Amino acid sequence: MKNDPVVAIAGVTGAVGAEFMATMDKRRFPVGKLKALASARSAGKKLGFRGQQIAVEALDENSFDGVDLALFSSGSGIASKYAPLAVKAGAVVVDNSSAFRMDPNVPLVIPEINARRIAEHKGIIAVPNCSAITALVPLWPVHRQNRIKRVILSTYQAASGAGAAAMEELVESTRASLSGRSYQPKVLPHPYAFNVFNHDTRIDPETGYNEEETKVMRETRKIFEDERIAMGVTCVRVPVLRAHCQAITFECERPISEQEVRTILSGAAGVKIVDDRVKNHFPMPVEASGQDDVLVGRIRNDLSDPTGHSISMFVAADQLLKGAALNAIQIAELLPECVMA
Amino acid sequence: MKNDPVVAIAGVTGAVGAEFMATMDKRRFPVGKLKALASARSAGKKLGFRGQQIAVEALDENSFDGVDLALFSSGSGIASKYAPLAVKAGAVVVDNSSAFRMDPNVPLVIPEINARRIAEHKGIIAVPNCSAITALVPLWPVHRQNRIKRVILSTYQAASGAGAAAMEELVESTRASLSGRSYQPKVLPHPYAFNVFNHDTRIDPETGYNEEETKVMRETRKIFEDERIAMGVTCVRVPVLRAHCQAITFECERPISEQEVRTILSGAAGVKIVDDRVKNHFPMPVEASGQDDVLVGRIRNDLSDPTGHSISMFVAADQLLKGAALNAIQIAELLPECVMA
Repeated sequence: MKNDPVVAIAGVTGAVGAEFMATMDKRRFPVGKLKALASARSAGKKLGFRGQQIAVEALDENSFDGVDLALFSSGSGIASKYAPLAVKAGAVVVDNSSAFRMDPNVPLVIPEINARRIAEHKGIIAVPNCSAITALVPLWPVHRQNRIKRVILSTYQAASGAGAAAMEELVESTRASLSGRSYQPKVLPHPYAFNVFNHDTRIDPETGYNEEETKVMRETRKIFEDERIAMGVTCVRVPVLRAHCQAITFECERPISEQEVRTILSGAAGVKIVDDRVKNHFPMPVEASGQDDVLVGRIRNDLSDPTGHSISMFVAADQLLKGAALNAIQIAELLPECVMA
Repeated sequence: MKNDPVVAIAGVTGAVGAEFMATMDKRRFPVGKLKALASARSAGKKLGFRGQQIAVEALDENSFDGVDLALFSSGSGIASKYAPLAVKAGAVVVDNSSAFRMDPNVPLVIPEINARRIAEHKGIIAVPNCSAITALVPLWPVHRQNRIKRVILSTYQAASGAGAAAMEELVESTRASLSGRSYQPKVLPHPYAFNVFNHDTRIDPETGYNEEETKVMRETRKIFEDERIAMGVTCVRVPVLRAHCQAITFECERPISEQEVRTILSGAAGVKIVDDRVKNHFPMPVEASGQDDVLVGRIRNDLSDPTGHSISMFVAADQLLKGAALNAIQIAELLPECVMA
């Protein structure tokens, strides 16, 4: 049992990598030594952490020697290759990618929901997809009290989910649009300035669902440990920098009122209710950005279900924090290797 | 029966006013004389129409003398006051506002759906809410063949629905954001740059639905002449200039396949299918802007309904054209007063 683990961050120069460091700092996460890992082209770059300048090292097979905790925010290709090497070197891996999420040997954890699964890990713990986290943090406390049978969910997703380069593309293409200049998209498949487009992952030619939607649907079943929950998801990108929104309609097994949902959610971990009908003040990306909680509002009866079993609501959460870095650090805080001094 | 009607446009200096003129021009709508009406502060301003410079006149009680067709794109307050005066002066009014939509004596018309109602007018014909038009043009051909029982719909609405000043606010606040300057919202209740917020209409404190959502729900029942259709609508503004998108899930009385929907919609008036799973090419505001058709794509089985009665899709339409000016001109084209030469 160590109080000051050696922590490696793989993908440290990315948007989530930066938030790993900021979140560890903010939460006084115990760090004996930090290894900053990225691709070879970032090696040598200096990053500030707790008053020190840390040189970025190129990720390779030997990067995890002596590492206790490895936080991965690389893509799933890098994670597939290096996370097992980190485990072999003795580290516990908390991985943000989709590489291991559906592996039955890998816990898929949102601490507010299934922290108890962390102890079952065999070296790797997976952080769910950011849209899954955003939806499930507020749905879980309801589901526990009145089983959710069906969810219909549409997302309003920020650039950050596609990484720092996509955020930059949103800024640069918007700048170009405002100056009347043309801009050739480099990161995303469609023009981003003042535009909306369906999620930039591959579409299953048979079902018509994109990979982001499929992730949300199957990860929900694994996290809720409920194979019967029926979900229809539409994932859409909007020109927003770092917080995701969702319009969610859900149907419960027994009748449920908006007041019951409000009562359940007002005490729920990780949830902040923002639901002011008089002031027209509801969850928004500008207010969710930088916040740990999932903002929940517009809680109301779904008028398309006259039986009174369905509720609609609108949520917003910081994709880089609760959708990624914060959820990972929360998991790490529950590891015996990282118990706070 | 006249071939060259005297046409007045009330609210000519607004975003829809400009599109009235452009649409009449594009469709060679017969105009004997154009009267350009707006508030007193715009009087004297010159507007180009078919090679002529037309001076804007201040709207008053006598503005409609000799007018055959009055197109209103003012707010509902102005329409409530002046549309009856225009009718009294002998004009037929096509009104874009919500003032008369639910009046049982006023036809509420989307020509692709209920053009036959135009002949029943008593002086005023109402153009539906832009979000209602966007949803109903593609839902109607399905509804006619396999009754739609339930609709769950989330919008991604552009600035244009709140007028030219809101479009300007989106541009200016985004410019400010990119320069690191602060910007105080003037038209909309929330920051618009890189943000998403719920629709800026009043929220019913009892139901929690905003007026835009209520309009879509009740106008659908009137246009479809179906009081039983169950709808749950969430209306949201996104930082887009002039085309609205919607994620729509609907449930039919009998089972329905995505292929049936594709077949029905491929021949439907006012609909263009944009649904390329391989290229990830679906309806987008940048492509819907300036187009007459409602773009429809992502047609797929709703996986939250295992009974096979439900379909999800994503649509986009130009709020200023099919959502307003074009729909109004299409109505006018069917009036005996405006039969083309």
